[in-house]
Amino acid sequence: MSNVTTGPALAKALLNPDSVVLVGISNNLEKTAARPLQFLRRAGFKGRIYNVNPTRKEVQNEKAYPSLSDLPEIPDHAFILTNTEHAIEAVEECGVLGIPVATVLAGGFSESGPAGQEREIRLKAVARRGGVRLLGPSSIGLVNVHNNLTLTANAAFGEPGLPPGGIFCASHSGSLIGALTSRGRTRNIGFHSLVSVGGESDLSIGEICESTLDNPDITGYLLFLETSRNADKLRHFALAAARRGKPVVAYRLGRSQIAAELAVSHTGALAGEDSVTDALLRDCGIARVDTFEGLLESLPLLARTPFRHAGSRAPRVGVVTTTGGGAAMAVDQLGIRGIDVIPPSDTTREKLREAGIDSGTGRILDLTLAGTRYEVMKPALDILCQAPEFDLVLATVGSSARNHPHLAVKPVSDSIDQPTPLACFIVPEAPEALNLLSEAGVPNFRTPETCGDVIAAALNRRAPNPDLGDTVPAMPESSRPIDEAAAYQLFAGIGLPHADFVVLDVDAPIPALPFDYPVAVKLLNENITHKTDVGGVMLSVRNDGELKEAISNIRYNVEKNVPGEIVNQVLVQRMEKAVGEALVGIKRDPDVGPIVMVAAGGIYTEIYKDRSLRLAPVTLEVAREMVNEVKAFEALKGYRGHTAGDLEAVADTIVKLSRMAVSDAYDIVEAEINPLFVLEEGKGALAVDALITISE
Amino acid sequence: MSNVTTGPALAKALLNPDSVVLVGISNNLEKTAARPLQFLRRAGFKGRIYNVNPTRKEVQNEKAYPSLSDLPEIPDHAFILTNTEHAIEAVEECGVLGIPVATVLAGGFSESGPAGQEREIRLKAVARRGGVRLLGPSSIGLVNVHNNLTLTANAAFGEPGLPPGGIFCASHSGSLIGALTSRGRTRNIGFHSLVSVGGESDLSIGEICESTLDNPDITGYLLFLETSRNADKLRHFALAAARRGKPVVAYRLGRSQIAAELAVSHTGALAGEDSVTDALLRDCGIARVDTFEGLLESLPLLARTPFRHAGSRAPRVGVVTTTGGGAAMAVDQLGIRGIDVIPPSDTTREKLREAGIDSGTGRILDLTLAGTRYEVMKPALDILCQAPEFDLVLATVGSSARNHPHLAVKPVSDSIDQPTPLACFIVPEAPEALNLLSEAGVPNFRTPETCGDVIAAALNRRAPNPDLGDTVPAMPESSRPIDEAAAYQLFAGIGLPHADFVVLDVDAPIPALPFDYPVAVKLLNENITHKTDVGGVMLSVRNDGELKEAISNIRYNVEKNVPGEIVNQVLVQRMEKAVGEALVGIKRDPDVGPIVMVAAGGIYTEIYKDRSLRLAPVTLEVAREMVNEVKAFEALKGYRGHTAGDLEAVADTIVKLSRMAVSDAYDIVEAEINPLFVLEEGKGALAVDALITISE
Repeated sequence: MSNVTTGPALAKALLNPDSVVLVGISNNLEKTAARPLQFLRRAGFKGRIYNVNPTRKEVQNEKAYPSLSDLPEIPDHAFILTNTEHAIEAVEECGVLGIPVATVLAGGFSESGPAGQEREIRLKAVARRGGVRLLGPSSIGLVNVHNNLTLTANAAFGEPGLPPGGIFCASHSGSLIGALTSRGRTRNIGFHSLVSVGGESDLSIGEICESTLDNPDITGYLLFLETSRNADKLRHFALAAARRGKPVVAYRLGRSQIAAELAVSHTGALAGEDSVTDALLRDCGIARVDTFEGLLESLPLLARTPFRHAGSRAPRVGVVTTTGGGAAMAVDQLGIRGIDVIPPSDTTREKLREAGIDSGTGRILDLTLAGTRYEVMKPALDILCQAPEFDLVLATVGSSARNHPHLAVKPVSDSIDQPTPLACFIVPEAPEALNLLSEAGVPNFRTPETCGDVIAAALNRRAPNPDLGDTVPAMPESSRPIDEAAAYQLFAGIGLPHADFVVLDVDAPIPALPFDYPVAVKLLNENITHKTDVGGVMLSVRNDGELKEAISNIRYNVEKNVPGEIVNQVLVQRMEKAVGEALVGIKRDPDVGPIVMVAAGGIYTEIYKDRSLRLAPVTLEVAREMVNEVKAFEALKGYRGHTAGDLEAVADTIVKLSRMAVSDAYDIVEAEINPLFVLEEGKGALAVDALITISE
Repeated sequence: MSNVTTGPALAKALLNPDSVVLVGISNNLEKTAARPLQFLRRAGFKGRIYNVNPTRKEVQNEKAYPSLSDLPEIPDHAFILTNTEHAIEAVEECGVLGIPVATVLAGGFSESGPAGQEREIRLKAVARRGGVRLLGPSSIGLVNVHNNLTLTANAAFGEPGLPPGGIFCASHSGSLIGALTSRGRTRNIGFHSLVSVGGESDLSIGEICESTLDNPDITGYLLFLETSRNADKLRHFALAAARRGKPVVAYRLGRSQIAAELAVSHTGALAGEDSVTDALLRDCGIARVDTFEGLLESLPLLARTPFRHAGSRAPRVGVVTTTGGGAAMAVDQLGIRGIDVIPPSDTTREKLREAGIDSGTGRILDLTLAGTRYEVMKPALDILCQAPEFDLVLATVGSSARNHPHLAVKPVSDSIDQPTPLACFIVPEAPEALNLLSEAGVPNFRTPETCGDVIAAALNRRAPNPDLGDTVPAMPESSRPIDEAAAYQLFAGIGLPHADFVVLDVDAPIPALPFDYPVAVKLLNENITHKTDVGGVMLSVRNDGELKEAISNIRYNVEKNVPGEIVNQVLVQRMEKAVGEALVGIKRDPDVGPIVMVAAGGIYTEIYKDRSLRLAPVTLEVAREMVNEVKAFEALKGYRGHTAGDLEAVADTIVKLSRMAVSDAYDIVEAEINPLFVLEEGKGALAVDALITISE
């Protein structure tokens, strides 16, 4: 294997090549494979462009070479436009010649059944052997707006005059880079570069983005994600981007199960469960938006809002408006996303009064039609943006924004230098007002939904988990469960208490128990994890006689229900009284690595999907936050006079288990305490059942 | 009181007046009160316009009259632009002169404290006395695009050349009529008329819309709602609109609690609970959208989709696309709203194959870049739109839509006459493509969120509840509870069984009970509704001795906890075993009238807000649907081997209670069975506690 191109050298060959070659470029302008040459010429790419076409001497009136080996130099980047089978040969040839990067347009690889999977294995092998970094397959190409490198077959880039900007866009969908560009063009939102990563057979979104982090022209990253494939690379990039202060925002398909399935069918990727995706993005400091336009509108705000830390108070927004109805729409959208809109403080109201502005008594400052003037809006904004009570000030402008932007929009764009971040929702159709705001750097929104979505995403954007390693541990080849008693022992070793128990041989006489009756009696056998289902659990056993009977029942049940299994031991456990129950578990996710979860357990956890999830490990602050995210735990907070449970002990359990998840000392694949008995406040929590699977 | 103007005569005076008068029109073009005359002249209104200004002979170079009584004729409609106090005088004068309709711009009425409320009472009184129908106060006016009546101070209408159309818009927010118009203008969506109803002191959205129902130029109604004020009028209108086949769509503020509160502060209306609003709109056949742009984009689709009936199968959507990623976004948005996207049937796939189109194996028909051609897209659409398995076909078009709409957009606009409703999501910025679709009548969307929102709203739009009366019963002045035994008797009278019980005098000796122990013993006293809180309930009483003791404990507890109360009777009830519990209740809501609710009861109902609600009465099909909407009842459907509960009996209870809610024979203000014990499947359900409040 040759030296592979990485980091800045990779970014150079990909996005700033001195020369490119178009392999399989077509002379028929109707064909997709004809586009890249047209687009590169139309955009005015200054680098050298070579064409390879085995059947023609000229393509689109330019010289064509019969093969890569006939070129007068080794280009930096080959865009391979041929069909599936020829693409593999072309990549192989790139390797032989030493072309460092190849982008493959063709599909027909792992997304298209067993034959395609086999082709993808071959493709990867020839690339690796030849030291060629591969973009794709199924990549529609990439664009660098700053040097006019429109190395793509996406029709959107046939239109010249893209405004350059600082946004780096990477997308699993090739079509979407065109949609984002056209939408950005109208909104005067400029891109630095856009990359369609296709099937990520080699180069992934994470590695590509990270290779560009040193580029000072790139101010933020915008990701369109369909899968959690290569999550380790994404995590590595995101943590590095956070250290450089470059914001990252993502739109991720798969909020619904049906779309998750679609992502499988159309890019050949296995979509992760949506809440795991949420955990991945949040814990790496990536803002996740839920609206497509919000994706485009979000980076200016993210650039001005700091990360939020676990345990800090909920973010607060102040609102000033010329339209009550318009502001109420935005406030509604903030409210359903849990963002507080708070009224001005008494001090702020006093300052407004001094400026001749009646702030009324309401939660928002409604200047009404009468206050739709620069001389009212500007001082109102100045006062709100200097008030310490707000984390963000939202200005909402009504009909005047369309034909009279100087009245209430200009004062907003003139206020960008205030200390508090500012954002603006324009209620009517008013493209010039939006552009005025964009030019001034004020985050602006054209619908209440994107306004709420982006502000919530920005203000809730979390600092990356500082305890996250840069790498994700690999999944073991195989794993095995250990028995319940051994699991309690491991848990005790990290400071997690359990209900008292003894292990009894089923044939030995009943000894004196070290604790009182009643007890629970459970089959002890690492091979049978669902003890209850096979009749392996007896509860409320009250004396020696009943214990003997329980053991014999368990033997009978298990040996009947699990043919071939012999019952040797049972675990006899003191029955405890609890205020409530919890479930705490850790698991190594194949995509995102170790995760930790807490829920109340039982039927309602499943019915209501009421649980909280993070990448492991977590701090105590984060664990407390997780506990607060589980709605069922409201019942353990002294709800309606009930005894309060020790939720702090639940948080402590989360922390300890989450550390165990990433510790080399244990090599745990999966562990679960279910139930964890939650005792009275101050009395702790006890593991009452335990399951651990370790790697073999 | 004079004859009041209603119905078509009202619509005429409001929206099609032969003459209007502008009271308090200003000569200062900077002032809001100068706008209506400017706008009317600029738009070219053909009716007669009179100006009243007590201090000037000319206003804006037109003749001004000193007062209304100086006018040469009695105009049809007065727009009163004066300040708050003078507005009342002006309305009074309208009454004296016989001007049938007055629109009041000024605020300062019920939304602004006690003094304002007093002013509003005076305003209403003078209007009623004079027989003047009042639009407002706080109305920014109204616009009829067809006759150029821009009788408004909303700046958006200073811009001439609005495209006329068939949409009638009524809004609680005055600013929003401008925002909707400007957004509609860009999208080539034309309005018939727009009305800002302000505080609805007299004329409400419902009455205004209903007065226009006979106008054949009006094809649908678009409502921006901030409150459920005058819900009876809205209901009356919506039921009538459904009978005429005119679709109604609403955007309603108040999804978040905070916005509900804002609606209070800025229009003086009390916002109802959001789920009551949902019930009101759904049960009257009004589609509710959650996105602001969806409001604007929805009517073309609503006009082509039939009402859905209770018990019918979930709607199914077929998707054809040129962009996998773009379609996946739309499908994701449909999925999170519970709309099924289903794959083509085998028959349909066969037809596609015959047409040379490979339909692959996936859920959506992805034509890919290669199939982005008229000759592929058109036959694909023809086949899908004739396939019986789809209720709607969604076409998604990628980058080609922008510069090459003939490839994949034109085939969509050419397919409007197919039997299955068609809709189109355009992924890039492509205004011409959208307009092409709008002109052809194809519902089109520019974001995946509005696409999902509107399709879900349209396909789930329910036929109005046929049992709803045209009027809402008034709230009684006062009401009183009846005791538990009397409540069981009323319930038994409508066929709702209860657990066996006897009523015992506390001083009498314990008789032989007509049922076995154990029993529950409960205080019987209509004045004390929270029996448990005062120690008035004893459970699991096992024999005569314990019963005696229980009665004495209840006497002691209640007489200690409720000073002055004497305990005379207790209710002794057989303790039943249930598979699960439910809560079924009815209530007369002050805005929307009688409603019926079902939940599982208990702590999780509150924590998860897990309940279903409808206007009463409901049919058995609707009641079953309500049961299915309560997630907690999953636990009673044979979940993981548990015994299934008789949910059909729960549905039956809902139906019977809901009929009771609207029956004159009972005059019930509120009734609740909580808990309703749900027995094994086929064994029914029993009321185990009951509470009824009747009007006095």
